[in-house]
Amino acid sequence: MSTFPLFPKSFASDNHAGVHPAVLAAIIEANTGDAPAYGEDPWTRAMEDAFRSEFGTGATAYPMFNGTGANVVGLGLVLRPYDAVLCPATAHINTNECGAAERLLGTKLIPLSMDNGKITVDAVRDQLSVLGNEHHSQPRVISISQVTECGTCYTADEIAELAEFAHAHGLFLHMDGARLANAAAELGCSMRALTTDVNVDLLSFGGTKNGAMGAEALVILNPELDAPALFLRKQGMQLASKMRFVSAQLTALLTDGLWRENADHANAMARRLADGVADLPGVSLRYPVQSNAVFPALPEKAIAELRQRYLFHSWDADENVVRWVTAFDTTPEHVDTFIADIRLAVLGPMGV
Amino acid sequence: MSTFPLFPKSFASDNHAGVHPAVLAAIIEANTGDAPAYGEDPWTRAMEDAFRSEFGTGATAYPMFNGTGANVVGLGLVLRPYDAVLCPATAHINTNECGAAERLLGTKLIPLSMDNGKITVDAVRDQLSVLGNEHHSQPRVISISQVTECGTCYTADEIAELAEFAHAHGLFLHMDGARLANAAAELGCSMRALTTDVNVDLLSFGGTKNGAMGAEALVILNPELDAPALFLRKQGMQLASKMRFVSAQLTALLTDGLWRENADHANAMARRLADGVADLPGVSLRYPVQSNAVFPALPEKAIAELRQRYLFHSWDADENVVRWVTAFDTTPEHVDTFIADIRLAVLGPMGV
Amino acid sequence: MSTFPLFPKSFASDNHAGVHPAVLAAIIEANTGDAPAYGEDPWTRAMEDAFRSEFGTGATAYPMFNGTGANVVGLGLVLRPYDAVLCPATAHINTNECGAAERLLGTKLIPLSMDNGKITVDAVRDQLSVLGNEHHSQPRVISISQVTECGTCYTADEIAELAEFAHAHGLFLHMDGARLANAAAELGCSMRALTTDVNVDLLSFGGTKNGAMGAEALVILNPELDAPALFLRKQGMQLASKMRFVSAQLTALLTDGLWRENADHANAMARRLADGVADLPGVSLRYPVQSNAVFPALPEKAIAELRQRYLFHSWDADENVVRWVTAFDTTPEHVDTFIADIRLAVLGPMGV
Amino acid sequence: MSTFPLFPKSFASDNHAGVHPAVLAAIIEANTGDAPAYGEDPWTRAMEDAFRSEFGTGATAYPMFNGTGANVVGLGLVLRPYDAVLCPATAHINTNECGAAERLLGTKLIPLSMDNGKITVDAVRDQLSVLGNEHHSQPRVISISQVTECGTCYTADEIAELAEFAHAHGLFLHMDGARLANAAAELGCSMRALTTDVNVDLLSFGGTKNGAMGAEALVILNPELDAPALFLRKQGMQLASKMRFVSAQLTALLTDGLWRENADHANAMARRLADGVADLPGVSLRYPVQSNAVFPALPEKAIAELRQRYLFHSWDADENVVRWVTAFDTTPEHVDTFIADIRLAVLGPMGV
Repeated sequence: MSTFPLFPKSFASDNHAGVHPAVLAAIIEANTGDAPAYGEDPWTRAMEDAFRSEFGTGATAYPMFNGTGANVVGLGLVLRPYDAVLCPATAHINTNECGAAERLLGTKLIPLSMDNGKITVDAVRDQLSVLGNEHHSQPRVISISQVTECGTCYTADEIAELAEFAHAHGLFLHMDGARLANAAAELGCSMRALTTDVNVDLLSFGGTKNGAMGAEALVILNPELDAPALFLRKQGMQLASKMRFVSAQLTALLTDGLWRENADHANAMARRLADGVADLPGVSLRYPVQSNAVFPALPEKAIAELRQRYLFHSWDADENVVRWVTAFDTTPEHVDTFIADIRLAVLGPMGV
Repeated sequence: MSTFPLFPKSFASDNHAGVHPAVLAAIIEANTGDAPAYGEDPWTRAMEDAFRSEFGTGATAYPMFNGTGANVVGLGLVLRPYDAVLCPATAHINTNECGAAERLLGTKLIPLSMDNGKITVDAVRDQLSVLGNEHHSQPRVISISQVTECGTCYTADEIAELAEFAHAHGLFLHMDGARLANAAAELGCSMRALTTDVNVDLLSFGGTKNGAMGAEALVILNPELDAPALFLRKQGMQLASKMRFVSAQLTALLTDGLWRENADHANAMARRLADGVADLPGVSLRYPVQSNAVFPALPEKAIAELRQRYLFHSWDADENVVRWVTAFDTTPEHVDTFIADIRLAVLGPMGV
Repeated sequence: MSTFPLFPKSFASDNHAGVHPAVLAAIIEANTGDAPAYGEDPWTRAMEDAFRSEFGTGATAYPMFNGTGANVVGLGLVLRPYDAVLCPATAHINTNECGAAERLLGTKLIPLSMDNGKITVDAVRDQLSVLGNEHHSQPRVISISQVTECGTCYTADEIAELAEFAHAHGLFLHMDGARLANAAAELGCSMRALTTDVNVDLLSFGGTKNGAMGAEALVILNPELDAPALFLRKQGMQLASKMRFVSAQLTALLTDGLWRENADHANAMARRLADGVADLPGVSLRYPVQSNAVFPALPEKAIAELRQRYLFHSWDADENVVRWVTAFDTTPEHVDTFIADIRLAVLGPMGV
Repeated sequence: MSTFPLFPKSFASDNHAGVHPAVLAAIIEANTGDAPAYGEDPWTRAMEDAFRSEFGTGATAYPMFNGTGANVVGLGLVLRPYDAVLCPATAHINTNECGAAERLLGTKLIPLSMDNGKITVDAVRDQLSVLGNEHHSQPRVISISQVTECGTCYTADEIAELAEFAHAHGLFLHMDGARLANAAAELGCSMRALTTDVNVDLLSFGGTKNGAMGAEALVILNPELDAPALFLRKQGMQLASKMRFVSAQLTALLTDGLWRENADHANAMARRLADGVADLPGVSLRYPVQSNAVFPALPEKAIAELRQRYLFHSWDADENVVRWVTAFDTTPEHVDTFIADIRLAVLGPMGV
C-alpha cells in the first residue's frame, strides 16, 4: 500500500499509468537466483522468440530503456556520417527528444509537411534532388511514427507505399512504434501486417505505454542492418546489466495477446471520451480519433476549469487544442466522470 | 516460480545477482494507480530526500538507467568541447563502455598509470603542462572509480588530496561510484565521508550491483554543476518516463542502511573466499582484497577445470589471473562450496 | 600564362573568379623569409588591427579557411550541447554545408519561414515557448545571412530589432557574412553599421567571394564569447600553420576600401544585368536585386540554350528560376554580351 | 618588399618557412580568369594526375587545408561509430590536434608504446583481444606517422609488416605523411615504395612543410575506401571553393621532383647541424637523425642562452631535450652560424 496519496486518473499520457499486473508478475518471476548479465539469460532468449513469433522469423529484438534510446540506436544502424533523416515535422525524434538524434548521431533531421500527422511519398520525393551532391546532407531514411503524434494511423497500404518508394531510392523506412500496438488494435490487424509484411526496415517497439514498467525494444526487420546493433546499444548507454527484468516485461506483453488487449481497451476509452463530448458546443476534434488520444478544441475557460482537477497537455495553445490520452487502466468510470466534468465546464451548471 | 532452470551461483559479477526483496517490494508498492511521468512524482521526491540525507543537503540526485549513462551525463556537465578526462588506464569509462565518452561527449580520455588501480596527484600533474595551449585537449576533470576496477579502495585522505589538487588547478573530481557502497563498508565510514566531505564534485552512484533491479544515479555534490543536468539526462536517453519505479529502488537501498548491509555482506564473502584459497600452492592475489572482488592468479589447469561449473571472468590471460566477485546474495555456503572446488582443482583429488 | 584553356566568364558564383591583384600582391609580399607559425606573425597582427579599424576596438578576428569553418567555429562558441540554432530555411548552414553543424556541433537547426530570404522577430518568437523545457532543444542563437541566400539585404534596423529581441530572451545573434561587403555597398554604409553598431554578437566575414584566394574570418564582436575561440579553431581544423598568407589576404581587402570597391562593382554589374533583361517577355525576378545576384524566372527553352555557353545554377527547377552571380572582375562587356545572348535565347533571332 | 622586420632563420618548425618560389609561381599562373569552384577545374585534374604518377593509378587525391583536416577526413573513411584508432602515444593526432579526432569523429585513440617513435606489430596485437566484444571500442585502423614525431623513419619492410598484420585482422593502415617526402629522401626511394607498394590504405600527404603555402592532400590508395570522401571533405570543412590555388601548389611540388629536392636539402641541413654539435660535451641525441629534425639534450644553461636569439621547441623539459627542425630554405650558412652559437653557448667563450 502506497505511502503517498493517490493521484486522480490522468489524461495527460499513457505513461502516467502504472504497470500491468501480468507484467509485474513476470518481473517477480524473473527474480530467481542468478542469471548472466547483459542479455545472456533465458528470459532474453524467450523475449527474442516472442518477437519472432509476432514479427516473423527474420526479426531481431534488442531491449532498450526508453523510446529515445530505441530510436537513436535504430537510426544509428542506417546513418552514415553525412546522412539525413526525413520525418514529419511533428515527429517525436524532431521535437521531443532534446536534440538527441543531432547530438548523438550527428545527423540532420529534415522536417516534412504532413496531413493529420502523416507524410506522403510526395513530401519525400521533394527532398531527393540532392542525392549524390556533396554540398547537402543525404536523405537516408524515412522515419514515421505509428500511431502518429496526432493519434492517427497509417494504413498498411500507406506504409507499403512509403517503403516501396524508400527502397526504390536507396532509402530505408524506420518506424517509431511507441504506440504500434494501438494502431494494430485500431486497424484490426497484426503488428506484423503493419511492419514486416509491408517492408518496414526497423522499428522502435513501445512497451512502456502499453503497460510495462519501462521496456522498449529495437526490432530489426531487415537482417542486413543487424551487424552493429550490439555495439551501438552498448555505446548508446542502453545495455541493461540485469536485462532479464526488461526482457520479461516485453515477453509478458507479447504473451496471449496482452498487448492487443491493453491497446484495444485504451482505444475504446478514447472513443468513449470523444463520443461523450462530440455534441458539445464549441468543442471540435482537431484530428480523427484513431487510437488512444483525443485532440479537442475547447473553450479556453473550460480548459482552465478542467485543469483544476485533471492532468492533460496543451497541444496548440493558440487554438485552445488540448490532448487527452487514455491507457490500459483507464476505466469507463474514469472516462464518464471526466465527460461529466467536461460537460459541466463547457455548459456550466445550468446547461448540463 | 521460474520456468527456466536455475543457474549456479555466479562469481562473474555482482550484476548476475537478482533483486533484493526489499527493492522488489518497493517497486510493487510504487505501482499504485497513476503518477506523473518524468520524475514529477512523490517517489522521486522521496528518493531525492534520501540522497540528501546520505550525501548532504547540497546533493542533487538524478536517476539513470545504467552506469555508463550516469558517467556520460555526469562528465558532460563539466566538459567543454575541447576538454579531456584524466582517468586510470583501467577505468570503466576508458575500457568497458565501448567508447561512449568519446562518441557521445566528444572528449579525449587520457589514461594515467596507477598503482593497484589507483592514481595519484603525480600522475595528474604530469598532464597539466598543456593547460592553455590550443594544440592540446585541455584536462578538465579527474575521474576515479571507487572501488577501483581492481577491487581496491581510495581512502578519504587520498580522495581529498586529489580533489584539492584538482580544484587548485581548475579541474573537477568525478567519481564512478558503481561500488561506492562497498568502499564505505570496507572503510567503515559513510558514503558522504568519501565524497561530499572530501570535495568530490559529482558522482555516479551504483544501485544495481548493490541489489537493485536497474537503478543508478548521478549525484551532483558541487551545486554549480547542476544547471544543465535535466537537459543532458533527457538528451542522453536516460530519462525514464515511469521514473517512480527507478526512484523507488534507490530509496529502498538508502533506507535503514540496506546499502551498507548488502555491501558489508558481499565484502565479507569476498574476504571468506580469499582466505579460503590463500594457502594454496600456485595461488596468489594480484591486488589486496578491499571490497567484493578477488583477483587470484591460479594454475592454468585449475582455471580450466573451474570454468566447467562456474562463471567468472579472466583478468590477465597472460598471467592466469581471474576475477571472482561476490554479491549481496552470495551465501557462506556458496563460497565454501566454491572454495572446496577450487582446492580440488588446484590440489587434485589426492591433495585435498 | 596558363597552360589551360581560358573559361568564359562565369555567372554561376562569385567564387568562380580568381584573385584580385592587390590580394595576390599581398601574398607575394608576405613571402619574406621565416615567420612564426599559427598566427604568431606580424601579418596576423596587422590583420587583427585592420578588423578592429573596420568593426570597432572590441572586435577580434580569427582567419579561417572557408565559410563553413567560420560558421561552425563561431556557432560553437555559443552553443551548449542541448542548444538549437534558429535560421531561415534557406540558410547556407542549413542547406549547403552537408550537415556540418549537426555533425560537428551536434546542434539542431530549426528552419524558420522567411520573406525574400529574411526572417523576422515573429518567426523567432514562435520557437521560444520551449525555453526551459528539458524535452526540447533550446533555442540559443539566431543565425542570419547578410546578404541572404536570395541576394537580399537586411537593413540595419532589421538587424537591430533581431539583436534586441535575441538579447532580451537570452539568445545571441550570429551573422553569416559571406557577402557582408556587398550588403554594406548596397546600403551605402560601413560594415560596422550592420554588425557592431546593431549588436550582432559574432560574424563570419567572407573574403573569398570578395576577391581573396581563400580567406574568411570569424569576427567576435561580443567579447564575452572570445575565450574558447583558439581551441575551437584548432580542433575545428581551421588553424593555418603559415597563417601569414591568409592574414595578408584579409588585410589587403580591408585596406583602402578594396572590399567596398570590389563589392560596389559586383553589385553594379548585377544591376546592369537585371536592367538588361527586365523588359523581356516571360522574364521576371523572384527577388529584388540588392547585391551581386539576380534570380530570374526564364522560359525553360531559353535556360537550356544559355547553358550551352554559360555557367549558372538553377534556383527553383519547378518554376524555371535560375541564379546569376557577378563578381569583382565581371566587366560591363561580360554583362552586355550575356544580356545579348539572353535576349537572343528568349526572343529568338527574329525578335532581337 | 616586406613592411615588417625580417625574422632570423627559425629552427622551430619547417612551417616557419615561407613558400618555395616554384609553388608561388604556380599560384600566380593559376590566377587566370574564371574557373569552376570546388575542384571542377583543370588545375585540380592536373593535381590528381600528378598524384597518380607518384602513387600509382589507383590513387585518388583530395586537397585539404591542413594536416589535421587530412587526418580527420581520412580516418573518417574507415571508422564505424564504435571503432578505435591504434597509434603511437606520440602521434600528432593523439597529442597535437586538440582532440579533433575524438570530437569530430567520435573515435577512441588507443595509444601504443613505441621505440624511437615507431610502433610494432606486437604492440598492435596486444589490443586485438577485444575484437567482437561489444563492451569495447573496436580497433579498426593503425595510424603511423612517416616520418615519426621523433624524426625517425619506418623502413618499407616495417610498413609492409604492419600493413600485412592489419589486413590479416580486418584493420586498415593509415599514414600521417606530413613529412613523407623527408622519409623518401632519407631512404632513397619513391614515396610510392613507402605507401602504395607496401599496402598502406590511405595517407595524409604533407605539402606545407615541404614548401607549399598551405596545401595538404588526403590520398586514398585502397580504392574501396573512396566512396564517401567527397561528403566527408565537405562536411569536414575542408572543401576549398577556389580549389585551383591549392591544387596548383601540390602539382608544383610533385613536378620535376621538387618535393624530393626540398626534402633532400632539409634532411642534409639537419645532418649538418647534428654533425656540427656531436662532439660537444653534455650534448647527446635522443633519437637518430633520419630526416629534418634533431633532438639533442643540451645543458640547461645553453638552452636558455640560445633561446635569446633562436626559435626552437622544447621536447622533454625534464631531460633538457629540445627539437631543431630544418626546412627547404635553411642554408648551410644558417646552420653553420647556429652551430657556432651552440658551441659558444655550451663551451663558453674560452672553450670555442
